[in-house]
Amino acid sequence: MKVSSLGEFNLIEKIKKVIENGKKHRNYNKRRLILGVGDDAAVVAKDSRKAFLATTDMLIEGVHFSKKTASLRQIGWKALACNLSDIAAMGGIPLYALVSIGFPQDTAVKEIEELYRGIESLAGKYRVKIIGGDTVSSPCFFVISITVLGEIEKKELVTRSGAKLGDKILLTGTIGDAGAGLRLLKNPKHLKFFNRYEKYLINRFLLPEPRIKEARIIARTKCATAMIDCSDGLDLSIKFISRQSKVGAKIYTDSIPLSGGLKKTSSAFKKNPLEFALFGGEDYELVFTASPEKTKKIKKQISGVTVIGEIVSKKEGIKFLDKKGKVLKLKAKGYEHFTDNPEF
Amino acid sequence: MKVSSLGEFNLIEKIKKVIENGKKHRNYNKRRLILGVGDDAAVVAKDSRKAFLATTDMLIEGVHFSKKTASLRQIGWKALACNLSDIAAMGGIPLYALVSIGFPQDTAVKEIEELYRGIESLAGKYRVKIIGGDTVSSPCFFVISITVLGEIEKKELVTRSGAKLGDKILLTGTIGDAGAGLRLLKNPKHLKFFNRYEKYLINRFLLPEPRIKEARIIARTKCATAMIDCSDGLDLSIKFISRQSKVGAKIYTDSIPLSGGLKKTSSAFKKNPLEFALFGGEDYELVFTASPEKTKKIKKQISGVTVIGEIVSKKEGIKFLDKKGKVLKLKAKGYEHFTDNPEF
Repeated sequence: MKVSSLGEFNLIEKIKKVIENGKKHRNYNKRRLILGVGDDAAVVAKDSRKAFLATTDMLIEGVHFSKKTASLRQIGWKALACNLSDIAAMGGIPLYALVSIGFPQDTAVKEIEELYRGIESLAGKYRVKIIGGDTVSSPCFFVISITVLGEIEKKELVTRSGAKLGDKILLTGTIGDAGAGLRLLKNPKHLKFFNRYEKYLINRFLLPEPRIKEARIIARTKCATAMIDCSDGLDLSIKFISRQSKVGAKIYTDSIPLSGGLKKTSSAFKKNPLEFALFGGEDYELVFTASPEKTKKIKKQISGVTVIGEIVSKKEGIKFLDKKGKVLKLKAKGYEHFTDNPEF
Repeated sequence: MKVSSLGEFNLIEKIKKVIENGKKHRNYNKRRLILGVGDDAAVVAKDSRKAFLATTDMLIEGVHFSKKTASLRQIGWKALACNLSDIAAMGGIPLYALVSIGFPQDTAVKEIEELYRGIESLAGKYRVKIIGGDTVSSPCFFVISITVLGEIEKKELVTRSGAKLGDKILLTGTIGDAGAGLRLLKNPKHLKFFNRYEKYLINRFLLPEPRIKEARIIARTKCATAMIDCSDGLDLSIKFISRQSKVGAKIYTDSIPLSGGLKKTSSAFKKNPLEFALFGGEDYELVFTASPEKTKKIKKQISGVTVIGEIVSKKEGIKFLDKKGKVLKLKAKGYEHFTDNPEF
């Protein structure tokens, strides 16, 4: 069977089996391993109080970015941003980055410097230090692989698996913008006016801001029962939290916060903006769950947090409801690598 | 200027400048950072006694391996081996790995499983646990990027920069084998007999054994003043230790341990076996320095360790001497990515 017909998430299940069935696999280093494969970042105990976080993301030219639509500085920023977002999704503080890049031999030195300037500008903003990496030759395209190490107090850790019946589902910022920004970049004829809205959406795609600040408030106040980032679209984020917390979810689609730019651009593309919100991906917002009491508290502490739904029992499944409470039939397909799904 | 004319090591100097000149760069997280870019692995303090090690390597199809000459299981093994070797070069214990892979959409699921079986078989051997990673689509070739996290007692740490005047230079195992193995793989007409020697050399290239066990003895006995692995050839290893320790080195080329297979194959290729030893790379042996007294001790504790030279003053530079003490003029060019140097 080809990977393309299996899909990324089934492939990961197969990989997990290989890892777990390793002949020599015993429970080595397990005592200190708090969380392995299957959350936004791995968690390893540091001491009785603190834990280390580790996450990694690989970006490949032609799949995750194009030098035609993004500068190398922007590409560098984004390559680090998706890793910082994974640390944020655990509630953690990012500390160190290891940066590996592969690129063709005829690349100009200036391009590499620009890439690192992009990484460094975001790293500096969140006080992340680049402590290592690798530079290698690539036959024809750029590859960037970044690993970020972070830290968290164990009692502040938020995973995907703690959502409880009756919890509210909350979202930082607006969603769907990055997907619409990508659509604009891929259809430059729509860009002839390049207005404020279009610039906003494209920036949301090219220069995402990891929600480190918000994540730290959520973690410190211990208000969240589960958390994940929205890198693969809201639909998949909800699915992951539901699956790993063994619950269901009701999403009030009318409450999903959509930017003015997204609404205008969706109508230009004759699309329902919800499609961008649910399946567009790459927004790097945080989705988290909290009890109704804690929800009130956190809304006072972080501006721009919206309640978009509620945790229900597992047997109720995941439902997207319109403002009348009717179940919406949206093509529930997230952005997965390896499936022929460029346009969702 | 193109990267190809600058060379990898000058490029890394440029990257370090970008990182250090980051506008927002302050000494954040520096208190805990023991070693950043510039050694085999980065070192971060864990507590008053212990430190974490982090290293990463990226391997790209067509540059570092070919599916024509290696199975995916072998490729997986090697991708982890070069990272474990970096941990060994600090004296450390490898603990965790994050594995990112990029591959074409039409790859068979079985191939990915084979790759992970290769990684897992080596991981199991050294009790390393795979705790995370990423799987992404690649337009046309395989990319593997692995990060390994390890641990060490701070007082056991061995860097590249502690070599002292009068220290002996030691080497584990034999050297040049992997380079000769690669030469055989690239020239299959020489392989028609595929004898014991040829198999040995090819295995040394395809399935290198990281010197974790030896590294731990060296670290625990605190006998080494400096250490590095031989991933880029002995010549470059000596250069790095000399540069970072601010010393010179005399290498007695007659003492460099060469395997019977290397000698036979070199003569078949009409090559001086020393060329493979000094510039071939990918042997993943350890080069380290120790005082004459400690040298005697360590030779009793690790079998197959050879004294190959001596640390001299910086102004004497690096000299390769023949058995009569005459300076050998060898084309001192290590295996660098990005330079047009496939055949040294």
